[in-house]
Amino acid sequence: MARRTTGEPVELESSGSKSARTRERLLDAAARVLSRKGFAGARLSDIAEEAHVQAPAIYYYYPSREDLIEEVMYVGAAAMREHLVRTLDGLSAGTTPSDRIAAAVETHLRHELEISDYAKAMIRNVNQLPEPISRRALAEVGLYNDLWRSLIAELDAAGQLRADVDPAVARMIVLGALNWAAEWWNPERGPIDEVISTAQSMVLHSLRP
Amino acid sequence: MARRTTGEPVELESSGSKSARTRERLLDAAARVLSRKGFAGARLSDIAEEAHVQAPAIYYYYPSREDLIEEVMYVGAAAMREHLVRTLDGLSAGTTPSDRIAAAVETHLRHELEISDYAKAMIRNVNQLPEPISRRALAEVGLYNDLWRSLIAELDAAGQLRADVDPAVARMIVLGALNWAAEWWNPERGPIDEVISTAQSMVLHSLRP
Repeated sequence: MARRTTGEPVELESSGSKSARTRERLLDAAARVLSRKGFAGARLSDIAEEAHVQAPAIYYYYPSREDLIEEVMYVGAAAMREHLVRTLDGLSAGTTPSDRIAAAVETHLRHELEISDYAKAMIRNVNQLPEPISRRALAEVGLYNDLWRSLIAELDAAGQLRADVDPAVARMIVLGALNWAAEWWNPERGPIDEVISTAQSMVLHSLRP
Repeated sequence: MARRTTGEPVELESSGSKSARTRERLLDAAARVLSRKGFAGARLSDIAEEAHVQAPAIYYYYPSREDLIEEVMYVGAAAMREHLVRTLDGLSAGTTPSDRIAAAVETHLRHELEISDYAKAMIRNVNQLPEPISRRALAEVGLYNDLWRSLIAELDAAGQLRADVDPAVARMIVLGALNWAAEWWNPERGPIDEVISTAQSMVLHSLRP
């Protein structure tokens, strides 16, 4: 499977060339189709139609359907991590562990539900893909989990994690609640701000004394 | 797609006949393979091997791969609902709304993680299947959601739901946290009892004042 070596997310790569733009359009289309239909349902013909590209032309840009999907998964996972790093770096030094977790909840939900088809496609599919397609993405997911491990450890260090809560289980319970929003939320279910504020309140109360 | 008309779960159907036993073995095998590999990865040849049946013989029992998978989804969803109904019916009349929710959390996690490949296969796949394969299962999931809607409404009626928590969002956040456990928990991650007790504490604290 083709691998990019720079580690840069694909969005940054869009040079002015027509070829680069078409490649990006294909990737965007693949993310949209995968986020809705999943790995089994995402046919190359659907992706081509969504991208306004003739289906056989896809092979000019990607050696196989698997390569295209692998790239979507990786870009989705890397962007989630970068997004959270940027959010946390942007908080002032005195921000409490609770407020850092609240900011992380908002970042996760907005990125997954509102901003990125890539994130949604990754979350809904990555755990059921063959290992060669998920490997790079799962490495990024591991780093993303590490960020959350630190957030909960900071809460614990501040005496704000309840004694009856196992930190590792708690991390996965919280991330599960946030990830699963990709399965049910859509704009018709109500404003995303209401989901975010309810989730922030529930997550913090679920962890603190 | 073939439809059973009795509405009875397949488990009850295992008559003594060799044919009925083989059909059940195929269904069990399909549930196991689907719970691990998902819809895209679950090949008929894997299911046949798991069931110790020659692959072409599957068509004697199920008209198509889709019919077999449709049945797994339905059985998984129906069993989750029946399991929860049984748990709630078994609680004494004076059980508090909080204790009823705690019991529902345990039932969901045990059924999903420990008892049933069908439940796990359904949870991990049903939202990404073509509508004809998911229709009957999703109707059961809707009834299951109604049970949880009532549990949270009972908590609310007892003055035990925080004012900043939207009940519909809360239900989906809780069910998401529980469903996503299928993605990460395995026996090597530690005892299931620890997951259950942490989840019960987190869910109740996430909802109550």
